[in-house]
Amino acid sequence: MTATALDVDYVPSYVRGAWWSPGAGRQGTEVRDASTGELLARVSTDGLDTAAAVEYARVTGQSELGKYTFHQRALMLKKLAMHLNAQREELYAVSARTGATRGDSLVDIDGGIGVLFAYASKGRRELPNSTVLVDGAVEQLAKDGSFLGEHIYTRIPGVAVQINAFNFPVWGMLEKLAPAFLAGVPSIVKPATPTGYVTAAAVRMIVESGALPSGSLQLISGPARDLPDHLDYRDLVAFTGSASTAEKLRAHPRIAVGGVRFTAETDSLNAAILGPDAVPGTPEFDAYIKSLVTEVTVKAGQKCTSIRRALVPRDLVDDVVSAAAARLRQRVVLGDPRAADVTMGALASREQLDGVRESVQQMLAAGAELAWGSLEAPDVVRADGSTGTSPDGAFMEPLLLTWPDSDADALHSVEAFGPVASVVGYTDVADAVRLAARGGGSLVATVCTNDPDTAREILTGIAGHHGRVLFLNREDARSSTGHGSPVPHLVHGGPGRAGDGEELGGIRAVRHYMQRTAVQGSPNMLTSLTGIWHAGADRRFDAGHPFRKPLSELRVGDAVRSDLRKVTLEDISAFAETTGDTFYAHTDQEAAAVNPFFPGIVAHGYLLLSWGAGLFVDPAPGPVLANYGLENLRFLTPVAAGDSIRVTLTAKKITPRETENYGEVAWDAVLTNQDDELVATYDVLTLVEK
Amino acid sequence: MTATALDVDYVPSYVRGAWWSPGAGRQGTEVRDASTGELLARVSTDGLDTAAAVEYARVTGQSELGKYTFHQRALMLKKLAMHLNAQREELYAVSARTGATRGDSLVDIDGGIGVLFAYASKGRRELPNSTVLVDGAVEQLAKDGSFLGEHIYTRIPGVAVQINAFNFPVWGMLEKLAPAFLAGVPSIVKPATPTGYVTAAAVRMIVESGALPSGSLQLISGPARDLPDHLDYRDLVAFTGSASTAEKLRAHPRIAVGGVRFTAETDSLNAAILGPDAVPGTPEFDAYIKSLVTEVTVKAGQKCTSIRRALVPRDLVDDVVSAAAARLRQRVVLGDPRAADVTMGALASREQLDGVRESVQQMLAAGAELAWGSLEAPDVVRADGSTGTSPDGAFMEPLLLTWPDSDADALHSVEAFGPVASVVGYTDVADAVRLAARGGGSLVATVCTNDPDTAREILTGIAGHHGRVLFLNREDARSSTGHGSPVPHLVHGGPGRAGDGEELGGIRAVRHYMQRTAVQGSPNMLTSLTGIWHAGADRRFDAGHPFRKPLSELRVGDAVRSDLRKVTLEDISAFAETTGDTFYAHTDQEAAAVNPFFPGIVAHGYLLLSWGAGLFVDPAPGPVLANYGLENLRFLTPVAAGDSIRVTLTAKKITPRETENYGEVAWDAVLTNQDDELVATYDVLTLVEK
Repeated sequence: MTATALDVDYVPSYVRGAWWSPGAGRQGTEVRDASTGELLARVSTDGLDTAAAVEYARVTGQSELGKYTFHQRALMLKKLAMHLNAQREELYAVSARTGATRGDSLVDIDGGIGVLFAYASKGRRELPNSTVLVDGAVEQLAKDGSFLGEHIYTRIPGVAVQINAFNFPVWGMLEKLAPAFLAGVPSIVKPATPTGYVTAAAVRMIVESGALPSGSLQLISGPARDLPDHLDYRDLVAFTGSASTAEKLRAHPRIAVGGVRFTAETDSLNAAILGPDAVPGTPEFDAYIKSLVTEVTVKAGQKCTSIRRALVPRDLVDDVVSAAAARLRQRVVLGDPRAADVTMGALASREQLDGVRESVQQMLAAGAELAWGSLEAPDVVRADGSTGTSPDGAFMEPLLLTWPDSDADALHSVEAFGPVASVVGYTDVADAVRLAARGGGSLVATVCTNDPDTAREILTGIAGHHGRVLFLNREDARSSTGHGSPVPHLVHGGPGRAGDGEELGGIRAVRHYMQRTAVQGSPNMLTSLTGIWHAGADRRFDAGHPFRKPLSELRVGDAVRSDLRKVTLEDISAFAETTGDTFYAHTDQEAAAVNPFFPGIVAHGYLLLSWGAGLFVDPAPGPVLANYGLENLRFLTPVAAGDSIRVTLTAKKITPRETENYGEVAWDAVLTNQDDELVATYDVLTLVEK
Repeated sequence: MTATALDVDYVPSYVRGAWWSPGAGRQGTEVRDASTGELLARVSTDGLDTAAAVEYARVTGQSELGKYTFHQRALMLKKLAMHLNAQREELYAVSARTGATRGDSLVDIDGGIGVLFAYASKGRRELPNSTVLVDGAVEQLAKDGSFLGEHIYTRIPGVAVQINAFNFPVWGMLEKLAPAFLAGVPSIVKPATPTGYVTAAAVRMIVESGALPSGSLQLISGPARDLPDHLDYRDLVAFTGSASTAEKLRAHPRIAVGGVRFTAETDSLNAAILGPDAVPGTPEFDAYIKSLVTEVTVKAGQKCTSIRRALVPRDLVDDVVSAAAARLRQRVVLGDPRAADVTMGALASREQLDGVRESVQQMLAAGAELAWGSLEAPDVVRADGSTGTSPDGAFMEPLLLTWPDSDADALHSVEAFGPVASVVGYTDVADAVRLAARGGGSLVATVCTNDPDTAREILTGIAGHHGRVLFLNREDARSSTGHGSPVPHLVHGGPGRAGDGEELGGIRAVRHYMQRTAVQGSPNMLTSLTGIWHAGADRRFDAGHPFRKPLSELRVGDAVRSDLRKVTLEDISAFAETTGDTFYAHTDQEAAAVNPFFPGIVAHGYLLLSWGAGLFVDPAPGPVLANYGLENLRFLTPVAAGDSIRVTLTAKKITPRETENYGEVAWDAVLTNQDDELVATYDVLTLVEK
């Protein structure tokens, strides 16, 4: 494993494009192996110039990242993901020192790399190949069409400071870095002290990969010190960790009144609700027990998403405890993750262990009963395979608590951030909803039910209090990604106690690092500003058929307008016959005239579309390779026999692909009749060679 | 005008469904006519039970509003808008007492009613007729399709406390009330003391209209006192006003650490940039001068969006000052708004006037020079048409300041919230961008240029610092809605000094009052939870052709699957001939085979679509009235001669209209070939009778 992180005194920082360590002899926090207590390194930022780091990000980082489009940045993320993927084993070895089993490390390391791949893919599929993201529809602000408004996102003009929790040193960094990078915003990453050496090892690999432009990423290994003092409204702080630290940050003057954007994701007292229908013997009951045990044991329960409150029908509390206990007995082998067969590792540190024990004592004092497990130091499997106590390791048995009073305050407010969950009885579904909400806002809840009415009632009641709700039943129990696992496609975060922030959620997270701005102007001006042709803007009809132009020559606004073509009753009848679409509006004059929308027999919408293509197409081989789809089609004025139609086709949006010899072109298509009334509007999607 | 607001001692509050005034003899703040100083009323909330108001909103308000769908609420807003519209004159009369001219009142009153109409319309056009809003695309989370994720918005489970500024007592209330109401969230409105009697008059009309359900709206006329103490993470505070009050609110423990959602819109030092091309004589120069004068004089400059910093090429400072001065001389008649011909009224109060004068003195001390106007008490037109000074009126002449040093701190930080603007020279476009950003985040900037390159450079530089940017040129100067006017379609708010919040922006603002929740489950479960059919969920093929079912009988999942129909080369040739679509991929085997996406000649996409309709249509008259459009069409597998296709059509989304005897039905359409490969997927949009 990396020399930098472990064989020297200090976990290094990476600032202004270079590795940095405090001078010899500085004080520093000691970091120890979670299973053995062995001293691994010291952590200190004494003497680190945080103001210079902020300035470097704002100047060099912004400038370097600004040279690339969303697609180009997405490809860099893909390259980075592949680089890290090839070195996973090395990271696993470092990660084991934090008490993480191989399974735990998979969540952290492979999970983090998975986020990079997801953003690499979404960035190219869902973002334009430019630096400006248009949000929503164009709004007509003047009746004559000469004044429009729309929203754009551009990157925030500062730095993203990312303060991460100790439990996921790799995923925690990458899930924030990926969307910030894609947005074009440089990151300063500050990992938590107990496991920051794993982050440092990953940053070492990132730097060595050369995948990211200068200034994209800086690492502060240790206290952030005066870093927040140097931030202003251009910057963003994204925090993951405890509610109390979030409070402190929120109160910092630069954040409270200085306009620094702030988002927090804090651990919460997540519930799992066992539906009344999910009695023992049902697949839902089994899925529930499995989830509960997984959440208590994975990462030794040190997950902000873990199940803390198992809400079950009152008369099933005993069944749930004994089924969970049986599974714990069967599955859990506690010990040093480097030993074979170990399925549950240590907490991250002795301090963490002390904190969890203290919280449990607090709950016991408030009325909780220990239904399974013990607070005594457990026997564990040591790295060499021997068994016994491990006085220097941060080991703890999984614990299940029960509560005579389901409304006890401590049950809904004290969190033991370890392998601890409470099993709590509810009287009916409304009571379950009420109890879930007593968590004061949570990241996630799981609901095990196969009854749609129960599911609806619970979702209606708890959605406003949760960032994510997972429904498990016989149909998805096996394929589910699980209660505790945020996925890059979906939002991670929650209201109230959960921090009131949002992360991930696909491209939503990229927008967190961007400013939304309403832009108003004429169609020509908005076309110039966005690179997308706007209805009402100038068209160029005199530059040859646009289907003859490769991407390199095609410009938005290049257009073709056809002659009029007359539609006869025979055309309509023949189309009905050959397609089989004999809907009465196309075949029966009397019935059609009764229809509130038609004057009598009208042409098929699909006839109009097909003729439209016939009118705009340029038949010979050329740069246009295929029409791969169509969007936003609306039929506006019906066309009867005797009417004529023409098409106007305008290049609207041009998106060259980085990795292919072609790209997408969206064409604005308008069908009009002999009186210039709008017959239909739509976007034609094509692939065009470069 | 309403007896309640003016003829009694106190401006009344409206809480828990009843009007409330403090007991006789309580102390209260005096409110006076802005032009004459006449005592109008007193304001006090001494003895008002704010905790009960919050509880009433959470219980009665949430419950009553929860009975209606988005469309039903939108129709209530429309009814309310029409009711207020019919009583505009009465509101104008009250509004005149605040110093507002008829034009100023139009912005406030008609502008506010316009917001109601806009949300009434958007609510029905852009929201489903239900209570849950789906956000974005469905995400496949398992390869076998059995586990999906998507995002929904449900209303926040609390109350929206809306704290408004004095300058727009009607618009300020309605622009927050409309989206909150549409979301289904009850509002408690707290207007600013100096003009709260106008808000009270409007609330009186709202209550009398009976348009809104009980608990939708409460009014606190006076200090909010301990109201914030009763809020928690379920609630939201939306604030408009000064940055200093926003700071105080942000620091309140319930907001800083209690999880109360908070959004602020504060006045900012908005810039207007005159492009280097927009020299005197150009339409852009004229538009610039017109905007500047409008922003300085409308509402006597008391707008958070007003132009405070006119950034112009250094050598045009004098031209701009003299052109603006000429227009001010020509246009401004200062006086009591009740006098004929008066075009500019008083500030809202003597206190306001003192504050503005103080800020101007501060700027003069910091280096500003008075280029036009005077700080002396001006002669004004009195209500009776006479002219002279008005010692008790809050009148002030428009002022233009210039600055020898364009970088003076006070220029970019001190705001005189009245008819005051600075004209500031810049050296080049990059300097203009830099100076605009020195405002530290603004609500809006105007850019006058007819040069697309200049426009792009400026937008790229300032977008991240602004909530809205208006581009004025010869094409839209006449039709523009103006620098200072937020429109309901576009976001209003800005980063940094502008409060870092967002309001309006169409349906975006409705979402501010809702919680976004990621929901994970099987296709059947997500179908049950959202009411929208999800790919992979059960279909019902055995219940007759779904085109024979009116809305009242149709259920999502009702489906029809056709037989296979074979495509021949003759079919393709005939289609090419009749439609005119002779693209080589359909007519020339050799050329088609060279295309990277086709095996040789393939059927037209439009042939497949047309046949698809022929395969699913049920020809006889029935409840399906029309196919009005199509969405999300993608061609996935080409179809060659000899292949066969079939269509599967499934009712996906059913949206009955409240005011018509029909509604929209979106159908999931899938074309597959003889090997069950996906040929095309799309949504067919139809109108179906109830």
